[in-house]
Amino acid sequence: MAVYTQVDSAALEAFLAEYEIGMPRSFKGIAEGVENSNYYLETDQGRFILTLFEKRVDAADLPYFVSLKQHLAARGFPCPRPIPARDRLALRELCGRPAVIVSFLDGLSPRQPSRTQCREIGAGLAEMHLALEDFSMTRPNSLGPASFAGLWEGRAASADALEAGLAAEIEADLEDIAGARTLSAHLPRGTIHADLFPDNAFFLEERFSGIIDFYFACTDALAYDLAICLNAWGFDDIGRTSGLQFSYSHGAALVSGYDAVRPLSKAEREALPLLCRTAAMRFFLTRLVDWSDTPADALVKPKNPLEYAQRLRFHRQANGPADYGA
Amino acid sequence: MAVYTQVDSAALEAFLAEYEIGMPRSFKGIAEGVENSNYYLETDQGRFILTLFEKRVDAADLPYFVSLKQHLAARGFPCPRPIPARDRLALRELCGRPAVIVSFLDGLSPRQPSRTQCREIGAGLAEMHLALEDFSMTRPNSLGPASFAGLWEGRAASADALEAGLAAEIEADLEDIAGARTLSAHLPRGTIHADLFPDNAFFLEERFSGIIDFYFACTDALAYDLAICLNAWGFDDIGRTSGLQFSYSHGAALVSGYDAVRPLSKAEREALPLLCRTAAMRFFLTRLVDWSDTPADALVKPKNPLEYAQRLRFHRQANGPADYGA
Repeated sequence: MAVYTQVDSAALEAFLAEYEIGMPRSFKGIAEGVENSNYYLETDQGRFILTLFEKRVDAADLPYFVSLKQHLAARGFPCPRPIPARDRLALRELCGRPAVIVSFLDGLSPRQPSRTQCREIGAGLAEMHLALEDFSMTRPNSLGPASFAGLWEGRAASADALEAGLAAEIEADLEDIAGARTLSAHLPRGTIHADLFPDNAFFLEERFSGIIDFYFACTDALAYDLAICLNAWGFDDIGRTSGLQFSYSHGAALVSGYDAVRPLSKAEREALPLLCRTAAMRFFLTRLVDWSDTPADALVKPKNPLEYAQRLRFHRQANGPADYGA
Repeated sequence: MAVYTQVDSAALEAFLAEYEIGMPRSFKGIAEGVENSNYYLETDQGRFILTLFEKRVDAADLPYFVSLKQHLAARGFPCPRPIPARDRLALRELCGRPAVIVSFLDGLSPRQPSRTQCREIGAGLAEMHLALEDFSMTRPNSLGPASFAGLWEGRAASADALEAGLAAEIEADLEDIAGARTLSAHLPRGTIHADLFPDNAFFLEERFSGIIDFYFACTDALAYDLAICLNAWGFDDIGRTSGLQFSYSHGAALVSGYDAVRPLSKAEREALPLLCRTAAMRFFLTRLVDWSDTPADALVKPKNPLEYAQRLRFHRQANGPADYGA
């Protein structure tokens, strides 16, 4: 959420000479997306975003992410469209870093999504899944259940430092969700976003206008993407670390929005509680790792893992898909 | 150069309801300007910048800065124009902070300005001075020579830690420029920008397109603004802390660009060497304060004061205005 690599106007002009998008009229670093450097770029031909990939994204994955967005954009799905240079390549290098120019997407990210926005994002997610049905590239989910043991190893003390007794809860959850790997292998699979939080979704007022930030996209059960959204969109007060409530009406709006575009199978619907619990565990564990590895005086504060410990407690007591509005 | 206050889309929409500029289509935090929070804002009526003033800017000065930009914009000078709300007030409050929406200005800031850009910014600065001739508000220069003793007090050890013997050089400079206060009091005075570095100036290719960031503007000798520009634009390699060279051709372009729009008096021309030395001292001292007050492990590195110690050495040996191309 910052600009790590400074691009001066001379370097920008030399870079743009490889493209056919005109001369720059405006160029400003913006605070958006994962840990890459992003610039708002305006030329006499339109508005764009220039992204420089910093070390947190594996350069070997970049052709996958670029192809994914090209595929979606070609099918008319609203996402940033990679702009090819004269030689038809969109993935280039600038200031020693992999770099890409994408089209600008209108819209604002809600902080507290409305029920209408939940229905809209459910439908948008299903449209994305359908548009990616014939996308042939694959990428394993490096943060799926197979990664959990490794993420958790040696973190019990950190969990208990956050809240006494939390480590034992997590150990029990990890056992309960051990079956999720087998379960999701038998559900319809495809390309998922895997990080569709409200700050990666755009709306114009209540209407869905697009999705950004595909840098966790991978091949997995489609219903797992919906389970991630139920965690990210379905709780009532984002940022709370205690007293968090699942909003049945938001969850039901999300699921019905999805189902109206891509009907869920009975197996997918029944898998939702376990998939939701698995998704909550994924974000709990990665936040716990960031939390315990970040020095206390760092300027960028990591997100609090307790928000996801709260979600795990809800999932633990859920009786079935009906509790999620599914 | 970061976003300190997060404005969510609900707060933004409530805020925009006070204006007549339409509904938001895009809203992104940008890395620009002094230590305020800035957002790129697009509505169906155009592009804007929303600024929230953080504590470094004195709220009592804000009406001055807003009026200054309104005055310039009304005279057609290219700068961000404060947009009044329905009640005609441009200075408002958002998220507990003073806030203003200004028009968006096209252009890019050069890192290494060309000679043509130096001539253009000289002319632009003179146009700004002329456009402000009938601006009636005043503000003292709180970082003028009268402030130097206070800034320097207790910093000798920090200076010597940067470079052995530097403190003695600075002490001698401070004595030499003691006459600057009297000198500048007798030169033509008016409203000056006082911080016109290349990152506060915009160009479309080689053509000047505007000035931003008026938060050091004050009432002082007009030629002092030109002296600040000679320091900021006239040296050959921005960021060097040794072996820095004054570029005679860049300096001459800047002065002649200025003089073509607002002819310099003989007294102003002759005062330039001392004013340049005074300006270099101002930036040396404020950088030294930031440098010695910032913890070594801070993420935001302060600018190196030695860049200005280098400039002071050039000014110390200059024989007269001709050495600056004036």
